[in-house]
Amino acid sequence: MTERSYHHGDLRAALLAAGVAMLRERAIEDVSLRELAKRVGVSATAVYRHFADKQALMQALAEEALAMLGADQRAAGEAAGGGIAGFEATGAAYVRFALANPALFRLAFAHPRGKMGDSLDHTDEAMRLLHANAAAATPPGGDPRVFAVRAWSLAHGLAMLMLDGHVPPDGDLIAAVVDIRAAGAAQ
Amino acid sequence: MTERSYHHGDLRAALLAAGVAMLRERAIEDVSLRELAKRVGVSATAVYRHFADKQALMQALAEEALAMLGADQRAAGEAAGGGIAGFEATGAAYVRFALANPALFRLAFAHPRGKMGDSLDHTDEAMRLLHANAAAATPPGGDPRVFAVRAWSLAHGLAMLMLDGHVPPDGDLIAAVVDIRAAGAAQ
Repeated sequence: MTERSYHHGDLRAALLAAGVAMLRERAIEDVSLRELAKRVGVSATAVYRHFADKQALMQALAEEALAMLGADQRAAGEAAGGGIAGFEATGAAYVRFALANPALFRLAFAHPRGKMGDSLDHTDEAMRLLHANAAAATPPGGDPRVFAVRAWSLAHGLAMLMLDGHVPPDGDLIAAVVDIRAAGAAQ
Repeated sequence: MTERSYHHGDLRAALLAAGVAMLRERAIEDVSLRELAKRVGVSATAVYRHFADKQALMQALAEEALAMLGADQRAAGEAAGGGIAGFEATGAAYVRFALANPALFRLAFAHPRGKMGDSLDHTDEAMRLLHANAAAATPPGGDPRVFAVRAWSLAHGLAMLMLDGHVPPDGDLIAAVVDIRAAGAAQ
């Protein structure tokens, strides 16, 4: 096997891109550092220079997945023109991302992100959008943090119930359920 | 090892009770038919007479877990006096059951129940309560099925986010988020 050469930093990006591609085809358990090395065309030793073990790789891929989710949500919110309609669109985009990328979604959320504790304090794009939208949409006297957790729970629960085969993955149902006006107006 | 003797039917009940107890102590992956046999004091062969394989045992334990969840929810709803307050209490009971019994909760929901498709059509106690409460709480002109999926998603999402360490498992937060009046009144 001829080992490909990468500029400094490029190999890490190539490994993450290949990892994302693998997680689009298979479950988390079926991704190995060895296979990732093979796909990118480098030795396992070269991979270990960037990721100490599978856990470190999965942590980095979880961050990639969150960044992809946040980008999808931002685009959906902007396409809907922002405001409450935009907030609802970010919720629907969350569920659609889960259905389109089950392994990446599960990786991002099924395991806590390291031992970082409360994800509500994180600053990734998805959390930033959630807090900004909740702050704008919370009625007077309401608690934006409760509103944020409620909106997140609604989208997350629907995504999990659809992913796990409990609720049919129906687009109209997604739009009807992830309805921020219904889910928080009377708070 | 002396094999205990059981009346017909009693062994199945004893195996399920022991399985529930094991799932209170460890993860799903760490429960084996062999260990279950040992705990109940019978041979593995005797267990196989009731459960063909681990999958069959897990299916039966998932049904036990759902029955326990439904019983908890019914008791909580009744203690709150029924109505909307009762509906909210069943939602909070759902999240508390998940936090108190992570492995049983994951078993009941993380895997689809066989290939039975849409869980909304199931007739277990938890689903029966959800539909009855949603039918009673849906505002005029609203869709009780959408209302039911929204209430379920809210409780399920909060349970999963708390179980997986993304949101702190705080009792006041549970009560504030699982608020049916806020989550559906304006539908």
